[in-house]
Amino acid sequence: MTQLQVQSEKHLLGTKGLSAGELNAILDRAAHWEQHPVKVTNQLQGRFVANMFFENSTRTRFSFEVAEKRLGTEVLNFAAAVSSVQKGESIYDTVRTLESMGIDAGVIRMKPNGLLAELAQKIKVPLINAGDGNNEHPTQALLDLYTMRKQFGEIRGLHVAIVGDIQHSRVARSNLWALQTLGAKVSFCAPPVMQAAELAEHAPYVSIDEALKADVVMMLRVQLERHEGSLFGSAEEYRAAYGLTAERAARMAPHAVIMHPAPFNRNVEIDDELVECEKSKIFTQMSHGVPIRMAVIERALS
Amino acid sequence: MTQLQVQSEKHLLGTKGLSAGELNAILDRAAHWEQHPVKVTNQLQGRFVANMFFENSTRTRFSFEVAEKRLGTEVLNFAAAVSSVQKGESIYDTVRTLESMGIDAGVIRMKPNGLLAELAQKIKVPLINAGDGNNEHPTQALLDLYTMRKQFGEIRGLHVAIVGDIQHSRVARSNLWALQTLGAKVSFCAPPVMQAAELAEHAPYVSIDEALKADVVMMLRVQLERHEGSLFGSAEEYRAAYGLTAERAARMAPHAVIMHPAPFNRNVEIDDELVECEKSKIFTQMSHGVPIRMAVIERALS
Amino acid sequence: MTQLQVQSEKHLLGTKGLSAGELNAILDRAAHWEQHPVKVTNQLQGRFVANMFFENSTRTRFSFEVAEKRLGTEVLNFAAAVSSVQKGESIYDTVRTLESMGIDAGVIRMKPNGLLAELAQKIKVPLINAGDGNNEHPTQALLDLYTMRKQFGEIRGLHVAIVGDIQHSRVARSNLWALQTLGAKVSFCAPPVMQAAELAEHAPYVSIDEALKADVVMMLRVQLERHEGSLFGSAEEYRAAYGLTAERAARMAPHAVIMHPAPFNRNVEIDDELVECEKSKIFTQMSHGVPIRMAVIERALS
Repeated sequence: MTQLQVQSEKHLLGTKGLSAGELNAILDRAAHWEQHPVKVTNQLQGRFVANMFFENSTRTRFSFEVAEKRLGTEVLNFAAAVSSVQKGESIYDTVRTLESMGIDAGVIRMKPNGLLAELAQKIKVPLINAGDGNNEHPTQALLDLYTMRKQFGEIRGLHVAIVGDIQHSRVARSNLWALQTLGAKVSFCAPPVMQAAELAEHAPYVSIDEALKADVVMMLRVQLERHEGSLFGSAEEYRAAYGLTAERAARMAPHAVIMHPAPFNRNVEIDDELVECEKSKIFTQMSHGVPIRMAVIERALS
Repeated sequence: MTQLQVQSEKHLLGTKGLSAGELNAILDRAAHWEQHPVKVTNQLQGRFVANMFFENSTRTRFSFEVAEKRLGTEVLNFAAAVSSVQKGESIYDTVRTLESMGIDAGVIRMKPNGLLAELAQKIKVPLINAGDGNNEHPTQALLDLYTMRKQFGEIRGLHVAIVGDIQHSRVARSNLWALQTLGAKVSFCAPPVMQAAELAEHAPYVSIDEALKADVVMMLRVQLERHEGSLFGSAEEYRAAYGLTAERAARMAPHAVIMHPAPFNRNVEIDDELVECEKSKIFTQMSHGVPIRMAVIERALS
Repeated sequence: MTQLQVQSEKHLLGTKGLSAGELNAILDRAAHWEQHPVKVTNQLQGRFVANMFFENSTRTRFSFEVAEKRLGTEVLNFAAAVSSVQKGESIYDTVRTLESMGIDAGVIRMKPNGLLAELAQKIKVPLINAGDGNNEHPTQALLDLYTMRKQFGEIRGLHVAIVGDIQHSRVARSNLWALQTLGAKVSFCAPPVMQAAELAEHAPYVSIDEALKADVVMMLRVQLERHEGSLFGSAEEYRAAYGLTAERAARMAPHAVIMHPAPFNRNVEIDDELVECEKSKIFTQMSHGVPIRMAVIERALS
């Protein structure tokens, strides 16, 4: 096995292709970190991690930054809005530049689809996907799985309904691959304009009433500006047809939970009063992001 | 006393309501830090402080960041300009998100008035107000008081004249409450369009000539764009009527000092040549911001 | 010798005026850091360095930040885009503010020409020029020299041809002064609209064919938008006349190398396939930026 192959196994480009063993190893290690009594360790002292966000994100970047600092790494933050990308420099050149400066791993978010796999071929330091186009967002799916496993004991046999703009959602895709690998059943629920045709062979599209019967109802952020002129041009119409209203939440099973990757649109895809209701695991999910990302960074740098 | 009550006492939302004992305790602790021979301690190692600036500020954010790093905390910087706030996420959701990720305290600056008190009810980690609307900017007032106490030995009996746009000034309000609690006399001086009617019962509005008789002449930054079409539409007119010109400064008492919270408009509210003159404590104030903020963060995290 | 003089010697404003001994001392110290087995030292623990970028730059800021963190300093990052500069505050006031807060050194990049020397007179903490106008960019030249010395053993006797927009290039100027001090021969190659008349007495302008005979062919980034309406209004025309094409690179001497300060415009001043070809030292240059900046910061803070 060559050095390059060893390195490339340390990339985390998506959940697609990760084995059940690999997924569980990350979830187990996150459990270790969640219970760890010392907040900041010196475990990875002297290692440099660059957070390279070619697409803005507060939540994900902060979650990675907390994870990195808890592991004792040095953190470099890059946001495209203040970057040379605007001067026409390509994403590749920026990542290659940071690699030249001696970073040990890169966390990367970007708009283009398909570029990441190509990048991972050329870059020697491990890359962790923090969201690329509508392709994958593996750490989000991992923290979702962690939340479900903690809630229900195991993933196998769970029914997870993912509701919203499936077509544009990397969260839906990363959850689909990981959940199926661990033996959960996935359903999608979306208006026709928000369905992804290529995913239909992997999971069925069901009605909102059917989706409410799942163990986990995962609502996705809807960006109505992407669907102007469609039937769902207004927040009210979307809420009426696909939103998780208080009335719909009341019809969920007593043991079932509400999840959302956030940021959420209150009173569009989810009613304001549900965000922090007893069934909602939304802020719990966020708190799980830190130990999951600690596990993922540790894996990349081990 | 519940845990929640203990936590909420660690918030620093304003100087209004702080007792003389509490104010003096912060000033005394700042004196400790100002003289501390070791620049960076490990006193708060492993604690995370998030600087959440929903309104931009270089000076205040840096001052907090230096204070936090001198205390050994991990620092997370959030600026609204690169944040999910633009995606419609509310300030509450962002703060709650950071809380979920395990921050130990938050420094927060924001434009809306009145929101902070509401936020402090819902958020369990201590919040430190770094300026909210035209309500309060308590750490600025504390560093101003520190500067005055160092200059004059004590605050009691001092006459402090605050000159400028009182109506829009959180600095004026925070200084008013704190100075009165410690026994100083406060006067305001402002053109009618810049007066705050609700403050008239607390401190008199005096002429600029009267203000010049004070022990401390505190000039406020004027933002003329807020008063377009008023009598003071031009910098020259404002300077002539209310600016601290060299001529006016010469009429101040020999022992009196000039203060300004900065940033300043040279040759509008203060003449260029006065900024670093012997009477001016402007950069001294800035240097006091670090020990004051160390004391305030320590208080929040103790 | 006064304290102020001692301090001002620690500024690094440019390579002009640096002696051969001073240049070599920095290059030697960088060699020490390049080979240093420990990535992050605590050598400068407790010292604060502020990166003050009044002109945006990803590469240079990151390179300084990695260098600072490897030396164990606390790092404060300031970018004008999120700064009070927009509120009309001058560069001087911002730097003076940071000095008041206790920074130990400042790295500074700015657009205006001539301001830095003035600033260095007034500011007591050491300032390191990270690029000012079209005046100097000394750390870029130092890393270029380091790369040449490592490649060829010594600088003396080398012929370095600098090709491109000499008029607007601080990199060209900093390289010119440093290379001549160390005994290299410098030639410039540029279309007439990109020539700097005042440099003609220091180095000859040669044809592109002549430039290709040098030991080092250093291509500069061309910003065609600066030369609209000129003969070189299009990328294709520029490439044809002055670009380092694959065909031209093939005519370089076997031992000669290609350099570029980056960011580069692929297929404008340099062909895409040359960026990472065997002759190219572009990413090697970038990797040398870190040890050079470690040496420079250490010098400032010693």
